[in-house]
Amino acid sequence: MDLVTLDDIRDAADRIRGSAVRTPLLSASWTGRDVFCKPESLQPVGSFKIRGATNAVAMLGAAGQTSAVVTHSSGNHAQALAYAARAAGLGATVVMPTQASEVKVAATRALGATVIQVAVDDRERVAAEIAAKDGAASVPPYDHAAVIAGQGTIGLEIAEDLPGLAAVLVQVSGGGLISGIGVAIKALCPQALVIACEPELAADLAESFAARELRAWTSFQTARTMADGLRVPVVGGLPWQLIRTHVDDVLTVSEDAIGAAVRLLALRGRLVTEPSGAVATAALLEHGSRLPDGPIVTVVSGGNVIPDQFVQLLTDRHRLGGGVPELGW
Amino acid sequence: MDLVTLDDIRDAADRIRGSAVRTPLLSASWTGRDVFCKPESLQPVGSFKIRGATNAVAMLGAAGQTSAVVTHSSGNHAQALAYAARAAGLGATVVMPTQASEVKVAATRALGATVIQVAVDDRERVAAEIAAKDGAASVPPYDHAAVIAGQGTIGLEIAEDLPGLAAVLVQVSGGGLISGIGVAIKALCPQALVIACEPELAADLAESFAARELRAWTSFQTARTMADGLRVPVVGGLPWQLIRTHVDDVLTVSEDAIGAAVRLLALRGRLVTEPSGAVATAALLEHGSRLPDGPIVTVVSGGNVIPDQFVQLLTDRHRLGGGVPELGW
Repeated sequence: MDLVTLDDIRDAADRIRGSAVRTPLLSASWTGRDVFCKPESLQPVGSFKIRGATNAVAMLGAAGQTSAVVTHSSGNHAQALAYAARAAGLGATVVMPTQASEVKVAATRALGATVIQVAVDDRERVAAEIAAKDGAASVPPYDHAAVIAGQGTIGLEIAEDLPGLAAVLVQVSGGGLISGIGVAIKALCPQALVIACEPELAADLAESFAARELRAWTSFQTARTMADGLRVPVVGGLPWQLIRTHVDDVLTVSEDAIGAAVRLLALRGRLVTEPSGAVATAALLEHGSRLPDGPIVTVVSGGNVIPDQFVQLLTDRHRLGGGVPELGW
Repeated sequence: MDLVTLDDIRDAADRIRGSAVRTPLLSASWTGRDVFCKPESLQPVGSFKIRGATNAVAMLGAAGQTSAVVTHSSGNHAQALAYAARAAGLGATVVMPTQASEVKVAATRALGATVIQVAVDDRERVAAEIAAKDGAASVPPYDHAAVIAGQGTIGLEIAEDLPGLAAVLVQVSGGGLISGIGVAIKALCPQALVIACEPELAADLAESFAARELRAWTSFQTARTMADGLRVPVVGGLPWQLIRTHVDDVLTVSEDAIGAAVRLLALRGRLVTEPSGAVATAALLEHGSRLPDGPIVTVVSGGNVIPDQFVQLLTDRHRLGGGVPELGW
């Protein structure tokens, strides 16, 4: 039996219509290639996470036995779940790591959720305790079929808009995003490669993929990347099973390439992105020669950047070398 | 007989499909109101101008007697026409004012057009001379039915996505954008107000509207606004006739409000905009109390900002007071 099916994703698309933006593909010919960005940074909470959270909350609401939800998240899923829960009239509690960006903590609280901050390695346990104690339904950020099906709607839309694509590049943290997209793309565009992208400093999936078994990094290791949304030390169990079936390759990128991608997405693509959201585009810039000919899609997954960091990346050209193509305006 | 009709705009929508992005409406609840942005900054050349230019070039191509086009433009129409002409296999010459932003001049040349820079008040005359001498078809930036019909496709899309809107706010330079949108919105959503927005420092339409006759400012006066795309000293004759029929009010905005809108569109809306493209959103921020209840759309018309200016506007909070609401992240 398939873990998440194309039908699950099509059902999710029906549930999230009107809540998530149907994002267009944006030509990124400034990369020098036939590339399109899928700007999930433009979703209501600034990331693709609205899709999975809305689908999961809608399914709980249809079941009719839930008055509150709980999750753990480094930030973007937190905001998405808070948003979806408020829209559905449910309470939401979010367990966030103490080093989560202030931007994301404040935004989650502003959406009406109760935020509890704990050490990063305690967050799953604390979320489980709240679920048990308060009777809240757990909506984990990636290791959850309804969440994965929701993220997979991105793949549906890509297949609809660009059925002849050669590859889709997707950043990986817990693996929910690429799992869902992989199911949709491999079902609808079997010719297309599905390529995972990670920071070199949080390359646990690259190691797992090479070893053909799940390998975890430490949160101390993954904390080194500026892509704060991609610091999950190991992909989830359900995503891992889907990744093994649907993902063709894993590319890792330097911090310099991530910074260059943030800057180029802003100045050439007119998109404000957070470092985590720019990792797939960074992989395109840094590893173009390893990609197939034909149209390529990079998923731009989020835009909740810290303003000071964004300004620094826009202006800090010197630090950003490392083989990344520098384009004029 | 109507000057530009809903049918003209529907025909334009068919012609530009696949060339212009079908932009979504993006919730801008960060304004504290029920507001949606229409992000034309995400078009291939970074502005709505691709719509009108593509429609005009497609109509010339269908006529089959044109091998080249010529225009005058402060920049965004220039890039759009260069892009559309190249896509159609036509040559393009663009007459630009000497003070046009370097970003826009360089981008127009990169798209294969011949750029000629002249004093701003000479540009119409020089463009006409080139049309006469070279036999190139003139595609002026706004005083042209095919261009207006192309820009009007924005109104079609707004009416489709948000038929119950209460008002649409549109920045005005030569008037082609609001003319086209006005025709579509008044035909499809007659309850909605169509509101023109201008910098206080280039408020020729506000003066004309109050006087009920066309009034020109000098290019010396309009050069004072940072919104370099809105420095046209007087709206075109055809736009003026359409504006008199379809526009309900004119709002003018301070330079501080324009800067605040650029910053908030970036940090809250995740959109990179040029000052000209943020003027309608600035009007919403500065004149919210003068707007009707119900859903409002602000057109975000362009994103070709000078990088240094963009960084300055992101960081220069002190200068930006003037009654504009300051929102936290």
